[in-house]
Amino acid sequence: MLQTQLFTKTRKEISADEKSLNARLLIKSGYIDKLMAGVFTYLPLGLRVLKKIENIVREEINLIGGQEILMPALTPKEYWDQTGRWQNFDALFKLRGIDSREYALGATHEEIISPLLKKFILSYKDLPLYVYQIQDKFRNEPRAKSGLLRGREFLMKDLYSFHSDDEDLDTYYYKSLKAYKKIFDRCGIGSKTFVTLASGGSFSKYSHEFQTVTEFGEDTIFLCTKCKEAINKELFSELNRCQICGNDRLEEKKSIEVGNIFKLGVKYSTPFNLNFVDKDGREKPVVMGCYGIGIGRLMGTIAEVWHDENGLVWPEAVAPFKVHLLLLGSDKDVKKSAEAVYKKLVEENIEVLFDDRDVSAGEKLNDADLLGIPQRAVISKKTGGKVALKARNEKKEKIVKISELIKIYKDNV
Amino acid sequence: MLQTQLFTKTRKEISADEKSLNARLLIKSGYIDKLMAGVFTYLPLGLRVLKKIENIVREEINLIGGQEILMPALTPKEYWDQTGRWQNFDALFKLRGIDSREYALGATHEEIISPLLKKFILSYKDLPLYVYQIQDKFRNEPRAKSGLLRGREFLMKDLYSFHSDDEDLDTYYYKSLKAYKKIFDRCGIGSKTFVTLASGGSFSKYSHEFQTVTEFGEDTIFLCTKCKEAINKELFSELNRCQICGNDRLEEKKSIEVGNIFKLGVKYSTPFNLNFVDKDGREKPVVMGCYGIGIGRLMGTIAEVWHDENGLVWPEAVAPFKVHLLLLGSDKDVKKSAEAVYKKLVEENIEVLFDDRDVSAGEKLNDADLLGIPQRAVISKKTGGKVALKARNEKKEKIVKISELIKIYKDNV
Repeated sequence: MLQTQLFTKTRKEISADEKSLNARLLIKSGYIDKLMAGVFTYLPLGLRVLKKIENIVREEINLIGGQEILMPALTPKEYWDQTGRWQNFDALFKLRGIDSREYALGATHEEIISPLLKKFILSYKDLPLYVYQIQDKFRNEPRAKSGLLRGREFLMKDLYSFHSDDEDLDTYYYKSLKAYKKIFDRCGIGSKTFVTLASGGSFSKYSHEFQTVTEFGEDTIFLCTKCKEAINKELFSELNRCQICGNDRLEEKKSIEVGNIFKLGVKYSTPFNLNFVDKDGREKPVVMGCYGIGIGRLMGTIAEVWHDENGLVWPEAVAPFKVHLLLLGSDKDVKKSAEAVYKKLVEENIEVLFDDRDVSAGEKLNDADLLGIPQRAVISKKTGGKVALKARNEKKEKIVKISELIKIYKDNV
Repeated sequence: MLQTQLFTKTRKEISADEKSLNARLLIKSGYIDKLMAGVFTYLPLGLRVLKKIENIVREEINLIGGQEILMPALTPKEYWDQTGRWQNFDALFKLRGIDSREYALGATHEEIISPLLKKFILSYKDLPLYVYQIQDKFRNEPRAKSGLLRGREFLMKDLYSFHSDDEDLDTYYYKSLKAYKKIFDRCGIGSKTFVTLASGGSFSKYSHEFQTVTEFGEDTIFLCTKCKEAINKELFSELNRCQICGNDRLEEKKSIEVGNIFKLGVKYSTPFNLNFVDKDGREKPVVMGCYGIGIGRLMGTIAEVWHDENGLVWPEAVAPFKVHLLLLGSDKDVKKSAEAVYKKLVEENIEVLFDDRDVSAGEKLNDADLLGIPQRAVISKKTGGKVALKARNEKKEKIVKISELIKIYKDNV
C-alpha cells in the first residue's frame, strides 16, 4: 500500500486525559480512534491487525473442530429471564423496541446458543459439538478507562462446546487449553502468557484464565516460576501455593486476562431444556463448556507488551504489513528504484507499506518507529543503489543489494 | 467438509407463520435461524455465503480506492443531535448507559464518520478520500417480516466519499455506479438488477437505487425495456417516462432494493465543521457521497431470485461450496472411492461438502437439491466406479471417470 493513499496520519500528541498505554500508542500511530470511553473505531492499519489476530484465532479454533456461526447482538429479554441474568448481569445493555418489547445487547451468548442448539441436538449421536463465533459484544461497563482492554463494545471469539458427559467435556477442555496456548504463541505473547487457575463456579472446582504479564495490567496473578503456571488473586487467598508442585513462594505480577475457559456443566442447558437421548434411551441435559478470547483486548495487550519509547513493535504474525519501505530524499533515480522495489514486493505478495510521502527523512523514520512494522527497508541517495534493512526490534542496519531483497524477505519473513 | 461434521440439519417443515420466501428457503435448508422478527443467526453454511458476498463487495470497493475501517455500533446521542436525526430518524434504537448518558445503535454512520474524518482532513491535498466499513447496523423497524430483506440487525457495507467539489463527487459517483454493477454481476443477479432513478434529497436532483426484479419484492419500479434503466415508484409519479430515451411505456415490476448511491453534498459535513483549505487558501465544507449495500439483504435477494420448487440454486461465486459429493449406499468399495475422491478434491482446493451421512439415497438427493450447491457428484454402486455429475441448474446427468473429475472441475468451476 502507498502511504500517500492512507488517510490516517500519526499524531504528534494526544490528549493527556487518555491514560491507557495501549490506547495512547494505538491512537498516536493512527491504528484506532476513540469515539468515547470503551468504544473505538479501527482505522485501516488497526483493522489489518485486528483481522490478522481474528484469523489466527479462527484457524486454531477450526483445528479443534469449531464450526463458525454468527449470532445477533440484539437478543430478547425472555431468554435472559430464563437464566435469571436479565436481573443478575450488571453489565447488560438494555433497550426497548418500537413494539415495546425489551431487548439486551449480547454481552455473552449462552442464552442464545442453548435454545439454538436445542433445534439440532436430539441424541448422543449429535454430540459432541463445538460452535463458535467472532462477533461484537456489548457491556455496560462503569469503568472503561483501559483502551482496548476494557471495551463497552468489543469483538470477541466465543466458543461453546456440547457434550454427553463430564469426561468428554474434560477431554475437550484440555484440547482447548492447548489451542489457546498456540493462539497466544502465534500472536507473539506466548512467553509472557500463563495458564492461571481461577475459581470454577458451581459446576467445576476451577476454571482457567490466560494471563499476560505486563507492567500496567488490571489483574494480579501469583506465578510459580518453576511450573510456569499461575493462580489468580481471588483464588490465591484460598490456596496459597502452587497446585502442581506445592511451591509457596509465588511471584506477584500485574497482568491482563487475554482468554478464559470455563466448564459450564448444565447451567445453561437446564433452563432451556437442552437435552439429548443417551445410548440407554434416557433423556439427559447436555453438558457445556465455554471458551472466550477478546480479539480487540488481545490487540491492546500485544501493544502493551510490544513497544519501546519510540512506538509499537508488532510481532510479525499480527503486524499490519511485513515491510515498511521508506524512500528518503527527492532524487529521481532513487525514487525510481524505490518504486521498482515496491512493485517487486507487491508482485511477490510480500505485504508492504511504501512511504512515498513528500515529507522529511526524519518524519519518515520517526513514523516508521511509531507504526512498528517488523522490517524497515530504506532507499536513499546514501544507500547508493542498495537498500538499508533494519528489523524494528533490532538496532543494527544491514546494507544489501536490491536484487537480494526479495530472497531475504522470502526466507526470513 | 464432511456433512457428518456439520451440526445443522435440513428441516422437513418450518412454521407456517414464516411468510417470507427467502427466510423459508434459508431456514429450511439450515443456512440461517430466526431469533425473532428481523434478527437472524447465520449458521455455518449461511455464514460461508455471507462471507463470500462480503468478499466480493470488499474486492470491488477496494478497486475503486475504498479504505476499510470498522466503526462501532454504540454511538453517543450528541452526534445525532448535531444533525437533528436523534429526533427525525424514526428507526433509531436508543438506549441508556450505566452513566445515564444516552446512545443510539448505528443505523447508518454519517454522524460518526464526519467527525472522524475531521481529524485527518486539513487541505485539498487530503482529498478525495473513500472510506468504508462492513459492519452490523440496527434499525428499530416496525415491519420486519421479510426475512433477510428487512432486518432490525443486519450487516451492511457503507462507503462514504469526501471531495473538494461537486465535479469530483460526480466522477466518483459514476465510478461507484459501475463498481456496483460489477458486484451484482459477480453475485449472479446482474441480469435482473437495474439502475433505478430515485429522488436525490436536498442536494442533488436524483440518486440511484439498484433494484432486483423478483416476484415478491417490497418495492415497485417502472422499467424501460429499451434502456434497461428504471424509475422508482415515488419518482415515477412525477416523471412518467424514461429519462434517457423518453419511452413512456415502462413496465411495472416488483423488486428489491439491493443497493443505493446518494450525493450528500455538505449535509453531513456542515454540522460537524468538516472543512478543508482549498488551493486558494479559503476554508470550504467537504462535499460527500454515500453508498450502501446490505450484505444480508443481498443474500436474501439471491435466494429469492435463484431457487426452484426443490430448493436453492446458488450462483457459483456465492455458493457455500462448489461441489456436493454424495456417497449413496453402504458398499465398502464404493465408500472407499468416494473417500478418495473427497480427499483429492480437498487437496486440489476445490471446495467440497461430502455427504458421508448414514441416511437414505433419497434423503441425500433431496437435501442436495435443498442446499443448492452448484455441482453435484454422485458415487454409488450404480455409477460403477465412475461419478455421476449434475449441475444444480440443469436436468442432465453426465457419467465421467473419477480420474477426469478434477480436470472437469478445475476447468469449469
